[in-house]
Parts: sequence; structure tokens; C-alpha cells
Amino acid sequence: MASQTLDVRGMTCEHCVNAVETSVGALGGVEQVNVDLENGKVNVDYDDSKATVQDIRDAIEDQGYEVLSQQDQ
Amino acid sequence: MASQTLDVRGMTCEHCVNAVETSVGALGGVEQVNVDLENGKVNVDYDDSKATVQDIRDAIEDQGYEVLSQQDQ
Repeated sequence: MASQTLDVRGMTCEHCVNAVETSVGALGGVEQVNVDLENGKVNVDYDDSKATVQDIRDAIEDQGYEVLSQQDQ
Repeated sequence: MASQTLDVRGMTCEHCVNAVETSVGALGGVEQVNVDLENGKVNVDYDDSKATVQDIRDAIEDQGYEVLSQQDQ
């Protein structure tokens, strides 16, 4: 299991939280997604034999947000 | 036909635009809804024999936004 915290720009409201949680949560191997709207952080716990951090970044960017950085937890 | 422009607080993104346009647009008698996200304005053209401005205000507030004022056009 792996865990990443991504800094994401552009999430402004609960609709954005839902869009990110739903899209990342739908990826195979993702166990948990938590969005900290106030601080623009997305924490993801996932099975890194099934998903990559690039998959996660792509899912977030496909929703229209910018991933600024990522950090292993 | 009547037209109102409402000042609405809390709309921050395209998801919010969609939420307001969809909820107001679903009211009977509403012909057109346009949201100006940048300025926090919602313009509604409607048949005032079928809908009231209070119906419109309620639809917007049910989506979680605050209607600050309204103005006949």
C-alpha cells in the first residue's frame, strides 16, 4: 500500500471535492481519497501494484485541476 | 414574461454554475437562466404566471447559495 499527498490548485467548493473524490476513487487500486479543500490537499491511499501516482494525477487533471506537487507519506 | 437579475453569493466554479442553471432551469415557467460567475449574477427569464421570483430564490438557496438581492430587468 502506498500513500501520497498531492497539492492541487483550483478546488473551490464541495462540488470540486466530490469531483476529485469520485474520479480518483474510481481508479482500480485506490482504497481511500480525502480532500482537504481549505489547504488544497488530496491524500490518496492506494495499492501501488494496481495504480500509479501518475494515474492519480491524470484523474485529478482530467477534472480540470492542476496538480502542483506530490509527496510520499 | 419577466426577467430578474439576482446577486448570489457563494458560486465559485463551473460546477456551481451548472447546479444553479439546472435547478432554476427545472422550474416550470423558466425560459432561460444565465449565470455570470465572475460577477455573481444570475439572470432568469421566466413566465411570471407560472413561477415567482421566490421560487427562483428558493431553488438557488436549496443549492447552498445565498441570494443577496434581486432586480427587475
